[in-house]
Order: sequence, then C-alpha cells, then structure tokens
Amino acid sequence: MKKAVVIYSGGMDSFTLLHHALSRGYEVAALSFNYGQRHSKELQFAADECLRLGVEHKVVDVTTINQLLQGSSLTSDIEVPEGHYAEDSMKSTVVPNRNMIMLSMAIGYAVSIEAAEVMFGAHGGDHTIYPDCRPEFVLAMDVAASLCDWHQVRVTAPFIDLDKGKIASIGRLLGIDYGRSWTCYNGREKACGKCGACQERIEAMEFAGIEDPTEYES
Amino acid sequence: MKKAVVIYSGGMDSFTLLHHALSRGYEVAALSFNYGQRHSKELQFAADECLRLGVEHKVVDVTTINQLLQGSSLTSDIEVPEGHYAEDSMKSTVVPNRNMIMLSMAIGYAVSIEAAEVMFGAHGGDHTIYPDCRPEFVLAMDVAASLCDWHQVRVTAPFIDLDKGKIASIGRLLGIDYGRSWTCYNGREKACGKCGACQERIEAMEFAGIEDPTEYES
Repeated sequence: MKKAVVIYSGGMDSFTLLHHALSRGYEVAALSFNYGQRHSKELQFAADECLRLGVEHKVVDVTTINQLLQGSSLTSDIEVPEGHYAEDSMKSTVVPNRNMIMLSMAIGYAVSIEAAEVMFGAHGGDHTIYPDCRPEFVLAMDVAASLCDWHQVRVTAPFIDLDKGKIASIGRLLGIDYGRSWTCYNGREKACGKCGACQERIEAMEFAGIEDPTEYES
Repeated sequence: MKKAVVIYSGGMDSFTLLHHALSRGYEVAALSFNYGQRHSKELQFAADECLRLGVEHKVVDVTTINQLLQGSSLTSDIEVPEGHYAEDSMKSTVVPNRNMIMLSMAIGYAVSIEAAEVMFGAHGGDHTIYPDCRPEFVLAMDVAASLCDWHQVRVTAPFIDLDKGKIASIGRLLGIDYGRSWTCYNGREKACGKCGACQERIEAMEFAGIEDPTEYES
C-alpha cells in the first residue's frame, strides 16, 4: 500500500484531503503543526479525528520560528479581522513562507518513514493572496523534494485547482461529516460565524448543498 | 546595501561564508539552528563571533523536529564514529531534509526582514553523501524561494563547487582566524582531533597552507 504524509490542520480543506487520501487507498500518516496559534481547537479536532480513524498523527511544535516572523494576526496580538476576506485584512494572517516550512518538515518525515508522497491542502481560493498556494510553487517543491534525498518523495496538492465550494463538494461525495472539522479563527466553544474563515466555510457548504452541521454563536 | 541571511553554524565552512559575505559588502543577518546537538560549542562560537563582528544573530530552536527523524548520531545516543568519513559512518549523521528545513526558515526570515538573499555553506566535499548539498538541489530551492512570496529572495551556495581545502584557501585570502570556528563533533574543552570532522578540518588547513590555530587533545 502506498504511504502518504498528509499535512492536516483540522480545518475543512485538510479534513477533506485526509479522507480523500484514505478513500484512494493510501496508508496515511497525518502531520499537524503548532505554530503558536491563539487557540488549539483545530489541533484538538485533528487529534480527535485521527484517533477515531486509527490514523497515525504527530504534532510538531514550531512556535519558536515566530521569532523570525512579523505581523501575523494568527500568532500575535493583532486583532482577527471580521467580515469577508478582503486582500488587506487577509494579508495580516500570512506567516512568511509557512507552507515551505511545513512542507520541508513533512518531506523529512516522509523520508524517515519511507512514504512516497506528501499531500497538502493548498487550493485555488487562496491564489491571489498566498503566493505559496500556486501550482508553480507546488511544482517547485515537488522538484526540490525529488533532489533532497536519495529516497524519492512526491509533493502533491490534489485540490490546487479547486475553490472551497468544490472541495466541500468532494467532501459531500465522500460522505464526511464536517462537524468534525474546525474552521473559525476564534477559539470559543462555538464557531463565531462572523470571521472570514467562518464566512468562507458557510459559503462553501451552501455551494456544495451540504446542510451545515456547525453550531454558530449567532 | 544588499542584505543577506547567512546560515551560520559556527563551523569552518559557514564561518568562512559569513566573512565572505561581509567582505563582499553585504549587510548580514546570521541565523543558527539548535536541532538538539549533543553539545552547543558550535553555537557558542557562532554567537561569540557575531557579537565580536556586530552582526545580528538569531538561534532558532528546532529540537522538536527530531520526533520526525530517525537514526542521527548528531541528535541521539548513537556513537559518533571515529576516523575518516567513510560513506557508511557518515550516513548516520544525516537528519533527513535538514537543509531544506533550515533554508525554508531562512527564506521566511529573509522575507520578514526584506533581505534579498539567503546564503548557505553547502560545498563539494559533501556531494556524494548528502543529496541536499548538490547544485541541483540549491537551484530547486532558489526557484521555490522565488515563488513562495511576492518579495523575491535568492538562495545561493557560493562554495557549492569547492571542497573544504579550497574553502580554507578563501579563508586564508580573507585573513580570518579559524580559531574562532568550531568543527569537532565532540563538545569537550579541546577538539578531539580524531573524529571525521576534525580530520577533514586538519586536511583542509594543510591544503590551504594555514598554520592550524586549533588546540587538539592529542
């Protein structure tokens, strides 16, 4: 059986990716990163789901890299912007080169456990704002992964050309329960329903025709 | 003035690279990694030299990534092999994908501080054993770095075609004191003079015609 490392945050995109990989017959090792998020709801959802599925799961604490980074509202005291993603409000959530940092560790892990592939959930909705969610970036990392070790690892982003609505449509086909994923930027008991992440989630569910299982505050 | 992030371990190669970058007029930010080495002599030498030169210096603790890695004698209890590097004994010192992990963080740092370049000390002597010290790997990382962010960062390895003897020859031209670099895998007061790293250092000094300032135990 082909083995893959899936970068799994606990959010809806990588939740769908995890199930996609399992449905395609991969033996999956899930990998999450703690980069000093203000809350760990996503990571808790990720851990619970892996336990439920019997999927191996590791969380790597990369909090210390924040000393190299500036201006991220996910990892500092800057306010989480409310309302729909606009380019300006979303930019404050970008940690420079986070995807390459996560991928490089996932590739190292794949070499260690002799996995053939690293899958991550970059997707089309992010293209205009995150340069490291573009197909050409994934291709460059795939090439770099083929050169970094004698053991060959592929880097793939199966959802690279999809937006969140189409990802949710795949989730609908897979019959997965999005109530076991967490999206909201705020870490309260229920999702806020107001932040950019919640709004994108709500729109994606509507697009896919899924009855949203998420409990919102409002 | 052009700004560069130099990956600086405190060893003789990156010590030479640091001085090379300064001599070429770069404003340098030095970056070291603590990946759970058994001793921190190298890092202490790196910190001391940056303080002396007035170069900004950061140390990122990446110890936690070791949970993903296996079989490294630098980061576990496996014996450090004595004698000259042979392919078999050297392999046990390789942490999978360590160079990509360090480079990805250095690129993120370069984006943060708006540096134009990341320099690292990969060199020819390692080619047959470390796949991620080959020119094609550096090229792939240079391409990936040009795509990961709107801010353009170059990745260069100025010594990529040189062996350690030639690197020491550059150091001789620069007039730098290798007594301020640390090479030995063992962390005792004096260098052991016996491990593979010490033996390569001794040979490099001989090749370059430098009177070795290092105090050895034997």
